Amino acid sequence: MAFDEIETPFGKSGRIIGGAATYIAYAASNFVKPIQQVSVIGNDFPQEELDSLQQRGVRLDAVEQVPDRKSFFWAGKYHLDMNSRDTLVTELNVLGDFKPVIPESYQGAEFLMLGNLAPSVQISVIKQLKTRPKMIVLDTMNFWMDIALDELKEVLTMIDVLLINDSEARQLTGEFSLVKAAKKVLTMGPKYLIIKKGEHGALLFNNKEVFFAPALPLEEVFDPTGAGDTFAGGFIGHIAKTKDISFNNMKTAIIVGSAMASFCVEKFGTQRLVEITKEDIDTRLNEFVQLVNFDIALV
Amino acid sequence: MAFDEIETPFGKSGRIIGGAATYIAYAASNFVKPIQQVSVIGNDFPQEELDSLQQRGVRLDAVEQVPDRKSFFWAGKYHLDMNSRDTLVTELNVLGDFKPVIPESYQGAEFLMLGNLAPSVQISVIKQLKTRPKMIVLDTMNFWMDIALDELKEVLTMIDVLLINDSEARQLTGEFSLVKAAKKVLTMGPKYLIIKKGEHGALLFNNKEVFFAPALPLEEVFDPTGAGDTFAGGFIGHIAKTKDISFNNMKTAIIVGSAMASFCVEKFGTQRLVEITKEDIDTRLNEFVQLVNFDIALV
Repeated sequence: MAFDEIETPFGKSGRIIGGAATYIAYAASNFVKPIQQVSVIGNDFPQEELDSLQQRGVRLDAVEQVPDRKSFFWAGKYHLDMNSRDTLVTELNVLGDFKPVIPESYQGAEFLMLGNLAPSVQISVIKQLKTRPKMIVLDTMNFWMDIALDELKEVLTMIDVLLINDSEARQLTGEFSLVKAAKKVLTMGPKYLIIKKGEHGALLFNNKEVFFAPALPLEEVFDPTGAGDTFAGGFIGHIAKTKDISFNNMKTAIIVGSAMASFCVEKFGTQRLVEITKEDIDTRLNEFVQLVNFDIALV
Repeated sequence: MAFDEIETPFGKSGRIIGGAATYIAYAASNFVKPIQQVSVIGNDFPQEELDSLQQRGVRLDAVEQVPDRKSFFWAGKYHLDMNSRDTLVTELNVLGDFKPVIPESYQGAEFLMLGNLAPSVQISVIKQLKTRPKMIVLDTMNFWMDIALDELKEVLTMIDVLLINDSEARQLTGEFSLVKAAKKVLTMGPKYLIIKKGEHGALLFNNKEVFFAPALPLEEVFDPTGAGDTFAGGFIGHIAKTKDISFNNMKTAIIVGSAMASFCVEKFGTQRLVEITKEDIDTRLNEFVQLVNFDIALV
């Protein structure tokens, strides 16, 4: 949970609410309650944002507010293609020495979504849970492959589903072919791998099946910030709602994640995620059905 | 119909049979007979290759063989990523002044697939047909946008379906967003636009619907040469077989095209296309169904 300041070819956001956990909670809260949030914020984090999350069923017992320090802050500028960006400012602030403490009230959680953060922090959360969740999903990024590969490899042995993008899958395995990369990742711990390809959709692998979910073709990507986290939130939200961890239900969860991500990019930050209704989500899910549905009986 | 010499990270092909019309005919002949081929070859083109095509139901009445000249020849080398390549040699030879003549025996063709060639040559073929085909599909490339844009714009007004890749769609329209690019293309003549995205699949647009077909995730792309032409051959082959030019059937045709392309890249040149059976094709089509099939009723 953090602040972002985003510049795209369409404009500047000013200082807005961001952070992986924020996006995940906004997306997942459309599908399941309560959500037990674990995060850290500074004294600058607005109370009305915390109230808004609580109203959506997000519990904040383990959101530590540090009285005399500031929240994490990131500023970035997207290039014209909206696929690449420059980081202008990164201020770790309270995130620099974040040591999450899982309260008794959170014990027994059935589904755990670990947003992108230092693998050591992710490990600490897993170890504090007295009962292993039914499914642990982990997001990470190239940064941790560069500076904390050993810890990352350790946490990979503790999880069920890894969520990375195509270039990260290549970096982690040294394989250019995503099919070969997936095979390698599945020997490193995770039983499932989701490779996010941005505007090109996402792939889900287990050791014998593969599923492909497209991204919705959009006229305009206004701001891609948080799209990956929103995807993760939709994914885990659907799994937690249905309590079904089969490959078949994970396919549906990926479509739900893709639908949520397609909303996220329509406005700056979490703005669009806050607005949308159940009906908006259903309409968009139906667009995904139309997008990929074909009749092979005709061949 | 031509010769290629291909180098990939996996090896060198030596001089092999290539050419858009060859790939299209090999792919389409799995679905429909006869195919009325229009092309030009030199005195170096092997008779056994012509025999092989004829045995598959490809008629060669309008394949002009120029006695004292050589066939078109292209040599290229793929980079490690297999997405980009350098052209090492281009010898136009007989293709330099090709003026196709449509014989009386070809009149009445219901479906016309115009492979990538100078727009003026494509126009000439359309104009020689006394009855307009039910569906005209056109493939082209950035090269013609650079040197023959006016003729290309003219032929676009004469066709039904345009087949280009993502960067060509952007170049033709000046729009980065493929959705916006599609809208512009659909004002230029074609009623349907297929945007090929290589390993990222293909999109089909008309003025109110969009369909997305994935590419099959492959462990290895051995040689991508001809994959786009093979896609086109599978597409038009399915349409010609079913004689159904609805959007719904075009979706299926794109899956068929994608399946054929997924075979093409498994070996050098047309080698794999020559080998495969009806059963191989059915098995692969079923893999596409599995790849994108999900149950949204669960949401």
